[in-house]
Amino acid sequence: MLEELATQICLVQNTLTPQLINPTLIVFAADHGIAKDGVSAYPSEVTPQMVLNFLSGGAAINVFCKQNNIELKIVDAGVNFNFEPNKKLIDAKIKKGTESFLNQNAIAQKELDLCFKNAHQIIEQISTTKCNVIAFGEMGIGNTSSASMLMSALCNIAIEDCVGRGTGLNDEQLKNKIHILKQAQQNHSTPKNAMEALAFFGGFEIAQMCGAMISAFENNMLILVDGFIATSAFLCAYTINNKIKDNAIFCHQSDEQGHKKMLDFLGVKPILNLGMRLGEGTGCALAYPIIESAVYFMNEMASFESANVSNK
Amino acid sequence: MLEELATQICLVQNTLTPQLINPTLIVFAADHGIAKDGVSAYPSEVTPQMVLNFLSGGAAINVFCKQNNIELKIVDAGVNFNFEPNKKLIDAKIKKGTESFLNQNAIAQKELDLCFKNAHQIIEQISTTKCNVIAFGEMGIGNTSSASMLMSALCNIAIEDCVGRGTGLNDEQLKNKIHILKQAQQNHSTPKNAMEALAFFGGFEIAQMCGAMISAFENNMLILVDGFIATSAFLCAYTINNKIKDNAIFCHQSDEQGHKKMLDFLGVKPILNLGMRLGEGTGCALAYPIIESAVYFMNEMASFESANVSNK
Repeated sequence: MLEELATQICLVQNTLTPQLINPTLIVFAADHGIAKDGVSAYPSEVTPQMVLNFLSGGAAINVFCKQNNIELKIVDAGVNFNFEPNKKLIDAKIKKGTESFLNQNAIAQKELDLCFKNAHQIIEQISTTKCNVIAFGEMGIGNTSSASMLMSALCNIAIEDCVGRGTGLNDEQLKNKIHILKQAQQNHSTPKNAMEALAFFGGFEIAQMCGAMISAFENNMLILVDGFIATSAFLCAYTINNKIKDNAIFCHQSDEQGHKKMLDFLGVKPILNLGMRLGEGTGCALAYPIIESAVYFMNEMASFESANVSNK
Repeated sequence: MLEELATQICLVQNTLTPQLINPTLIVFAADHGIAKDGVSAYPSEVTPQMVLNFLSGGAAINVFCKQNNIELKIVDAGVNFNFEPNKKLIDAKIKKGTESFLNQNAIAQKELDLCFKNAHQIIEQISTTKCNVIAFGEMGIGNTSSASMLMSALCNIAIEDCVGRGTGLNDEQLKNKIHILKQAQQNHSTPKNAMEALAFFGGFEIAQMCGAMISAFENNMLILVDGFIATSAFLCAYTINNKIKDNAIFCHQSDEQGHKKMLDFLGVKPILNLGMRLGEGTGCALAYPIIESAVYFMNEMASFESANVSNK
């Protein structure tokens, strides 16, 4: 795994002495209309509450980014809350949550364009720090439903095989979530492409992550992908441009049951499998030291030849 | 996994504010008489050559310990080489390699006692630094054969299910290794206990690791266990005192095929599975940041209550 990571990073950076510069993790947050239709164990208020928790430094992702010297950025991509101005919060709010995709499109075309424009600007801003490795996480009550719908559409997998317990549904709630998402699927045509899938089933944070991944690829950054929802954003980006996989490092296999299938569809193997289902980019932050290890051994380890060790 | 680690560390340290102090990784090195009987892809000279590589800072374990601020100690437990005095090298040499266990005992009773005495002194010395987390790695051409014999005896698993490719045997060499180890098994009675198994099939580095793990447990340290060989030493320690499992963290599942079975026998799940088969304690060094993450989130992360986040 370390050798594969080192090879990949060397190829992306076109060097035998790779470097990781100013690692940055962006958490995109937004609310979801579908949350009102009873797909989540937690109320939508948790989205802004968790954003405030990120801003005050109390969430898991704060702890892990601090530990591993990763710069943390929080983006309001469309949270249903009026935040006080805060230097740590990037305002990229489209509006206060998507429409419910049960009966209509979650995102209008203009809004979707704005998602990609905002995401592009965020990455361009970060690239001024010479950052060459960027990680993606998210927060948004209801967003495993969006991610499942995108996965079902783009991987052509039945929705019941994509849906999981999200933040912790019980058996009955899970059955209800599947029922609602099946209904939503019947109320839409089959999306023609990734952009239409994003418009149908949305997630402002998912659309902005997708746009940001594409911009990061254009800047030749390494792209660290977290769990189920971040991978659904990557899936959209990958559907738009397969080449993005060259730059992507999959950090953690989520406990959310659809994630393994999505990773299998993409033909990738994540670094960690710690049974987390937290989002926030926590899988990326935890895997980061191992990615650093791959770079360090490439640069610092002696070969058998240079260390005068006998061969077979 | 992080929650389980945090719980375990809190229980060992009997506190809700656990701390990792002066993490130390010890690489025990020794040579094996059985190596002369053709069980390894590499010649025995590689053992001292790699020790010299550790001392000059060029090995993988040097890189990963430096990265993660882990103090690295190298122990000559019985290498077939006269090393120049070196402050970085702990001299605990029993003699210049074990006898081949093909027809006789690898380790004499007096030598085995000395292994445990040396190991105890090493741990007592390290404990003066207040170190409370100690990792175990090894180097010794031929030592997957010792480890396989110990595993077969103590887990009661057929030798062919314990043996793997070690440093990289081809199919024919693997067949020959199994043949030799079966013969060795026939030339010994079934060991009555872990100490007899160590005397029969040895490994000065394995016996010293076993002793050091027991001493670390007596000092209430956390014990980080690396791959196949370190786990075989742990298996001996565990057979002597089952309670040692409370303090043990299994860091990496080796690519060596017997390792998973030994972990299953012990009923444990390692943190990482990166497909390495290097030894040296590399699995411990790579898993260490994740163990730190478990401690940091326990100490620093806000609860939903303290962060005013709504519950289900």
